[in-house]
Amino acid sequence: MSLVAVVLAAGQGTRMKSELPKVLHTAAGRTLLSWALDAVTGVSPDRTVVVVGFGAGQVTTTLPEGVESVTQTPQLGTGHAAAVAMGHLGTARDDDIILVTSADMPLVTAPLLDKVVKAIESAAAVMVSTERAEPFGYGRVVRTDTGSLLRVIEERDADGDQRQINEVNAGVYAFKGGLLANALKAIAPNNAQSEFYLPDVFPVLLSDGHRVEVVRADPFETMGVNSHDQLAQADSVLRGRINASWQRAGIFMQDPARVYIDAGVTLEPGVRIYPGVHLEGSTSVGPGAVIGPEVFAVDSVIGPGARVWYSVLRSAQVGEGSEVGPYASLRPGTVLGARSKAGTFVEMKNTTLGDDAKVPHLSYMGDASIGARSNIGAGSITCNFDGYEKHHTEIGEDAFIGSDTMLVAPVVVGDKAVTGAGSVITRDVEEGALAVERSVQKEVPGYAARREERHQTTAKNEE
Amino acid sequence: MSLVAVVLAAGQGTRMKSELPKVLHTAAGRTLLSWALDAVTGVSPDRTVVVVGFGAGQVTTTLPEGVESVTQTPQLGTGHAAAVAMGHLGTARDDDIILVTSADMPLVTAPLLDKVVKAIESAAAVMVSTERAEPFGYGRVVRTDTGSLLRVIEERDADGDQRQINEVNAGVYAFKGGLLANALKAIAPNNAQSEFYLPDVFPVLLSDGHRVEVVRADPFETMGVNSHDQLAQADSVLRGRINASWQRAGIFMQDPARVYIDAGVTLEPGVRIYPGVHLEGSTSVGPGAVIGPEVFAVDSVIGPGARVWYSVLRSAQVGEGSEVGPYASLRPGTVLGARSKAGTFVEMKNTTLGDDAKVPHLSYMGDASIGARSNIGAGSITCNFDGYEKHHTEIGEDAFIGSDTMLVAPVVVGDKAVTGAGSVITRDVEEGALAVERSVQKEVPGYAARREERHQTTAKNEE
Amino acid sequence: MSLVAVVLAAGQGTRMKSELPKVLHTAAGRTLLSWALDAVTGVSPDRTVVVVGFGAGQVTTTLPEGVESVTQTPQLGTGHAAAVAMGHLGTARDDDIILVTSADMPLVTAPLLDKVVKAIESAAAVMVSTERAEPFGYGRVVRTDTGSLLRVIEERDADGDQRQINEVNAGVYAFKGGLLANALKAIAPNNAQSEFYLPDVFPVLLSDGHRVEVVRADPFETMGVNSHDQLAQADSVLRGRINASWQRAGIFMQDPARVYIDAGVTLEPGVRIYPGVHLEGSTSVGPGAVIGPEVFAVDSVIGPGARVWYSVLRSAQVGEGSEVGPYASLRPGTVLGARSKAGTFVEMKNTTLGDDAKVPHLSYMGDASIGARSNIGAGSITCNFDGYEKHHTEIGEDAFIGSDTMLVAPVVVGDKAVTGAGSVITRDVEEGALAVERSVQKEVPGYAARREERHQTTAKNEE
Repeated sequence: MSLVAVVLAAGQGTRMKSELPKVLHTAAGRTLLSWALDAVTGVSPDRTVVVVGFGAGQVTTTLPEGVESVTQTPQLGTGHAAAVAMGHLGTARDDDIILVTSADMPLVTAPLLDKVVKAIESAAAVMVSTERAEPFGYGRVVRTDTGSLLRVIEERDADGDQRQINEVNAGVYAFKGGLLANALKAIAPNNAQSEFYLPDVFPVLLSDGHRVEVVRADPFETMGVNSHDQLAQADSVLRGRINASWQRAGIFMQDPARVYIDAGVTLEPGVRIYPGVHLEGSTSVGPGAVIGPEVFAVDSVIGPGARVWYSVLRSAQVGEGSEVGPYASLRPGTVLGARSKAGTFVEMKNTTLGDDAKVPHLSYMGDASIGARSNIGAGSITCNFDGYEKHHTEIGEDAFIGSDTMLVAPVVVGDKAVTGAGSVITRDVEEGALAVERSVQKEVPGYAARREERHQTTAKNEE
Repeated sequence: MSLVAVVLAAGQGTRMKSELPKVLHTAAGRTLLSWALDAVTGVSPDRTVVVVGFGAGQVTTTLPEGVESVTQTPQLGTGHAAAVAMGHLGTARDDDIILVTSADMPLVTAPLLDKVVKAIESAAAVMVSTERAEPFGYGRVVRTDTGSLLRVIEERDADGDQRQINEVNAGVYAFKGGLLANALKAIAPNNAQSEFYLPDVFPVLLSDGHRVEVVRADPFETMGVNSHDQLAQADSVLRGRINASWQRAGIFMQDPARVYIDAGVTLEPGVRIYPGVHLEGSTSVGPGAVIGPEVFAVDSVIGPGARVWYSVLRSAQVGEGSEVGPYASLRPGTVLGARSKAGTFVEMKNTTLGDDAKVPHLSYMGDASIGARSNIGAGSITCNFDGYEKHHTEIGEDAFIGSDTMLVAPVVVGDKAVTGAGSVITRDVEEGALAVERSVQKEVPGYAARREERHQTTAKNEE
Repeated sequence: MSLVAVVLAAGQGTRMKSELPKVLHTAAGRTLLSWALDAVTGVSPDRTVVVVGFGAGQVTTTLPEGVESVTQTPQLGTGHAAAVAMGHLGTARDDDIILVTSADMPLVTAPLLDKVVKAIESAAAVMVSTERAEPFGYGRVVRTDTGSLLRVIEERDADGDQRQINEVNAGVYAFKGGLLANALKAIAPNNAQSEFYLPDVFPVLLSDGHRVEVVRADPFETMGVNSHDQLAQADSVLRGRINASWQRAGIFMQDPARVYIDAGVTLEPGVRIYPGVHLEGSTSVGPGAVIGPEVFAVDSVIGPGARVWYSVLRSAQVGEGSEVGPYASLRPGTVLGARSKAGTFVEMKNTTLGDDAKVPHLSYMGDASIGARSNIGAGSITCNFDGYEKHHTEIGEDAFIGSDTMLVAPVVVGDKAVTGAGSVITRDVEEGALAVERSVQKEVPGYAARREERHQTTAKNEE
């Protein structure tokens, strides 16, 4: 006996009004398909097959290793999709279990699939149903007078009474492999859409005397994503689950509804998160760090006890106990040492800042390495671009870069060196030296009065 | 037969605790009155009359062309307001339809008004009612034993039993014109407030044997705005409607509850909007643009495929495929060409940036024109203000402005010209020339050690 | 007769996974304990005793004057805590009222405590109960067949039927002092936890023929905080109460769910608040000021009619009619005069800006005083730090500081003085004088073409 997961991912999702295949739209930092595969992984299938169709090429390139795909073309309904999957799988043994779920249902959890897999032990097939207050558009579950399953009828094929039914087909199933293979041969596209419907195998199985189990599920968990409205809802539910899980792990969040944490992010206990924080990609945050309000960090590492607020971080590293912001932008390759500071209106890129070094205000540091304990004065800039190429700036330890210093790269400023405010540094500065580029300050007494007079005259002449 | 819409807008709204007339408070970027008129427009009335009172002058200046106004003074109740409107309209024919709604009900929709207009075809008058779980403060709908309308009784005049009634008067009506004119003459201010109540015409009409139809409406749709709490609720509902409509049109919103789009904004399919985005006034966004997190844009044009985040735009234009932010402020008169960039800590005002031109960091460009493919170094500033007037800076195409260049306007930098880092440019620069204003870099060896020694001595002396 | 409030605050709150004692976690800007004491103050007790335990030292330092504390060690349950408190209080008279509440219930209000205090007038003891749809974990209220209180049974001690009970003990009580003292002697730790449970006094009192009153409360109001999830919920409810109260006072909030106002903040009527605003500590905002979107202000004073958006303020003062932002950071000691401006990418610290003075863009002003009507050009910086100490910059009235002026402190710029763009000012500037530090602008014709040629050659050589 083996367990095979079949994930239906062939649809286009025209209501998304997008060129992107529907299952590649993202919620909480992952594609819908990825969320579906994540749930499937939770029941440890022996094989996983994704049935692709619209945008097949795009979809298959996103599949993790070990996940198979098969293309359904043309797309003649879910029954046809299942048949295509069965064809790909080869001979199905009776005791193989075929678990079928859909890539546009990102809220389905592993525990629900596990329940389905357990339920099939004593049945030929399992269907998941759910109650919907507004069942319009869903296949209704028609039961016999004694309450057992009769069939599923689609909206377009349902009569008035059937449309009153609130129990709907959730689109998650399990089958004994051999029985499914046979039953699929017996179904026909006798419906308004002229499609092969997978649930049409149930009457076939029932009439052959087989048992079909119905597992009830929460309507939220089995919500399909067919519109931007539903995508936003799914995003909200997934983020709610992620946040609740981090709260249980000891993370403080002032307003979890305004915290956006991707599935791949890791946080240590004692992290405090304020509103408007987006943590994306592989970002990790060390214990006791305080993040927000208003931080965007993707693929970044924020060290223990760091304080980051009102800032944007992309592929940046922030050392233990460092401060970032308010209003800093750390671009890829920024590495801040321990107890360092990238303060207000500071942009850094491809730059290493040593332990205890500070870039407090109004600076651009790009393609630079700055030694421990150095201080960069406000308004300082690494002139790293000559119009053709980027060049490197090297600043030693304990250096003191005066305000508004232009460091014209490539250039090296030695340990303990000092630069005068307003200097353009075009040549290397020796260790311990002062480098200054400046003229003499001249004063023109009475200038303001003459300026005012001139302005008055001009204004008069222009009248 | 003609259809006349009467919009009651005379009240002050003392619970708002504001000098502004209540109906001029805004929700989702429009005044309450404007929302009410918007719904009225949906039923294409032949004439629209707004009854003004408190702040009449302020209110009438906001009225669109073609909308009439009449002042009710003193304000003796809704019945009096209707009489004032009827006086303004002149002789009412029996088959004229008078549709009455209120300017403090911004959630009323055209479909509801349409239902009311349709309902009066077979009645002398129509009243809209709604069920409220907490009916306190509303006029209760008193019905006969057989369920037909008897009268409306105000909170203050109601007895204990009547106060238990949950069906309340929603404040939207329609009348046959001649019948209304007559019935208004028959009502009297016999109530706790000594006011003329418009619903008091119903008993008059009923006793004359006329038919009064009651249309039921959703309690939310007929919510009146009498407090800041209700104003915020109305804002939320209106924005929810706007956002849902854009989602159906193919706009992605990660968290619609945190997206604030005014009614006059236009978006193209494929736009992606992240949390904390405010789009106001006449802002338009082209297909595939990505907006947010945290963008404020008013009266701005954002081109196709542009990427704007963590920025503020006011009357600015962003060309196709351009990048803005994080942390840019584009003020009025900013026009960015295609594939251009206004990057981090960049402020622009009354400035044109050519195609493929870039202002990547820490710059202020005001009253300037910058040619295609030019690059503005970090820390560069147009010194446009001489203390009296603003002057223009012109930069040609393919120019390379070195970091920290001060462009003292009026000044012209030619095509392909280059400026040296840290230069103050006070004279025009020829095409293809390098302009540099700089002294010689001097070096003082051993300065740091002497500085340290001096500091130690000073510190010692100060002890 | 005297009223004594006993606040239980001994628990650790291990589910918070934090070193901080649970009752010192904050919601809406105050500790949980502080909220509990706030409610207690509302019933004007003669004495208030906080029973501390875990982190006793930390907790007691936060207590306001007049509040007593007693340490419970070891912690043997709520009955033991009450006994410890009674021991601290000394002899209790029969008619003393002991009101017991818990420091981890920040949503309890004074009106609820008042109800409890009133209820005990005709009873020996009062217990507050509430209905919970999910009562798991709470002590269940077991009643007799006639509906009167029998006892409270804890989750661990309850049998299957008792666990079905939805009415739970809310943890708020009042007792007649002498009766409580006696009853506490009669209870024993005969339960799964081997603890003394305070509610076990009820069966003792009842069997002695005393009357125990049960007061029903709202489940939300009596929510205990035992996890980060509940802490966030409490924060949300408390902020909702604060915001609703400000809305009633005439404050406009576009989206109250995204406004975070601490309990100690004061606002004047007519203030308008946009989303993403955090007002913390002792911040006050004058009438008609417009705050947000996206403002963080702690311990700051914002004057009447000021406009502050996309900015961070810490211990700063903003004068009447002044403008701050977008993207300004005002650090401690910043004092802006009336009608002044701290604009875009402006950081200020320990700096006074005179009336009508402006720092419009890209500047750092630290340790400075700037006179009335002065204008600071973009890119200007006070070089206040020499690597060892901070120095002061003084700028007079009506001064015009050119763009990119470096003011090397200590330095004085006189009234009406002017500085040239790009100047480094190291010596004082006389009143009305122009100070300029600049070289001659040189031009190298044909530079661009040679630069391009050089680049091509280099690129060729590198191939």
